[in-house]
Amino acid sequence: MRPMPRYALKIEYNGAPFAGWQRQADQPSVQGAIEAALARLEPGPHTIAAAGRTDAGVHGLGQVAHCDLQKNWNPFRLSEALNYHLKPAPVSIVGAARVADDWHARFSALERRYLYRLLMRRAPATHQVGLVWQVRYDLDIDLMRDAAKALIGLHDFTTFRSTICQAKSPVKTLDELRMESVKTPGGTELHFHLRARSFLHNQVRSIVGTLERVGAGSWPPERVAAALAARERSACGPVSPPQGLYLSEVEYSDPPFSE
Amino acid sequence: MRPMPRYALKIEYNGAPFAGWQRQADQPSVQGAIEAALARLEPGPHTIAAAGRTDAGVHGLGQVAHCDLQKNWNPFRLSEALNYHLKPAPVSIVGAARVADDWHARFSALERRYLYRLLMRRAPATHQVGLVWQVRYDLDIDLMRDAAKALIGLHDFTTFRSTICQAKSPVKTLDELRMESVKTPGGTELHFHLRARSFLHNQVRSIVGTLERVGAGSWPPERVAAALAARERSACGPVSPPQGLYLSEVEYSDPPFSE
Repeated sequence: MRPMPRYALKIEYNGAPFAGWQRQADQPSVQGAIEAALARLEPGPHTIAAAGRTDAGVHGLGQVAHCDLQKNWNPFRLSEALNYHLKPAPVSIVGAARVADDWHARFSALERRYLYRLLMRRAPATHQVGLVWQVRYDLDIDLMRDAAKALIGLHDFTTFRSTICQAKSPVKTLDELRMESVKTPGGTELHFHLRARSFLHNQVRSIVGTLERVGAGSWPPERVAAALAARERSACGPVSPPQGLYLSEVEYSDPPFSE
Repeated sequence: MRPMPRYALKIEYNGAPFAGWQRQADQPSVQGAIEAALARLEPGPHTIAAAGRTDAGVHGLGQVAHCDLQKNWNPFRLSEALNYHLKPAPVSIVGAARVADDWHARFSALERRYLYRLLMRRAPATHQVGLVWQVRYDLDIDLMRDAAKALIGLHDFTTFRSTICQAKSPVKTLDELRMESVKTPGGTELHFHLRARSFLHNQVRSIVGTLERVGAGSWPPERVAAALAARERSACGPVSPPQGLYLSEVEYSDPPFSE
């Protein structure tokens, strides 16, 4: 039997109304929404695989998934048809491409990038509600940058992963952990940019929540290196909330999407 | 009788759930929400005056209003108390200051600034829903800038004001009409920055909607100058939708708020 043509999809979504990426029997999920839209195009069931299975409330900016279809679809028409059927869910196919039959959104990925948005201001957020983590005081970004250095590179990240993380090894290489102060009309945001081949469950939110304690003055910067060295989940700071987190980009050796 | 102390409030709001700034008998309004919060602090009725009475769905970033209270309030505590009582409405007091008894949010204002956010992209918006006007094609910003030149300065803006506008004269000076192309994670936005002592009803949205026709290639740039010269509402292009519009700043000779 001839294999079905495979398509890569680049997906943006607001995580607020979803119990996460992964399909669940009785709760709305991003995967479920897209599979339901696919079923309007070709009889299902459809099962799509994603580069990163984001948690409840976490957003996608450049999530990537693949699907196998029976027809040869023009990629642009495929994205248009899916977007039509996805309405009014806040899920949008922002790119589509035909890929090789052995191309895999998860296993072919070379690198994931995450963005975490933290809004520092006293007055309650209005336009940014659900899109940032708001802290109602200023953070010392220099102290946070100082503390963050200990986390870059190859480490056992046991401290910074969820106890339900299913990865075989807690050893990962964090290639980038950069903090950027961004002036916005609604106040100063701190943007955390993280880059790695792959991440552990809750790793980004564990790192951001821990660094926030440093910026707030509750933790001396060197406590972060000590927490990492402890290799114990209990040494971690608080996990930051999901609504500030965005899966922003997935890299492949042969990028399927033209910009 | 000693006059009641007067306070200036700087207000940010998401216009989506409101029928506009102005209090109405049976619909939610921003003014009504703030007056209700004031009534939780001191017995009412309270009547506040604003620099700009924004329409239904239009947002505030730096709206300014004033209120008269009986007690001497510490301005910071006043903003905190109001924000507490405003929850969960997307209205936030981002500044408060004691001002002179004859200071008036509307009549003392020297200049208003508006921002209009237009998102250009094919795929449906997710994170920006309700915060931008999305057009699903690219606009030629050079043509729009060319056309916009005709609108800057002192003109009779009859073409660009709503037929229900109550201003005595359609003659206004538009001090600035600047277009900026802004790369965002969700695509390219066009930001219109407008600045004038005061604006006519629907003036910003009439200008943006007309310039959009130029950028889309439907109107030659010179048609904008001709429309202005016609001094006829029917010569205007379509009025752009409210959700892209933000009252961003109000200037006073003696700025009440420290930044």
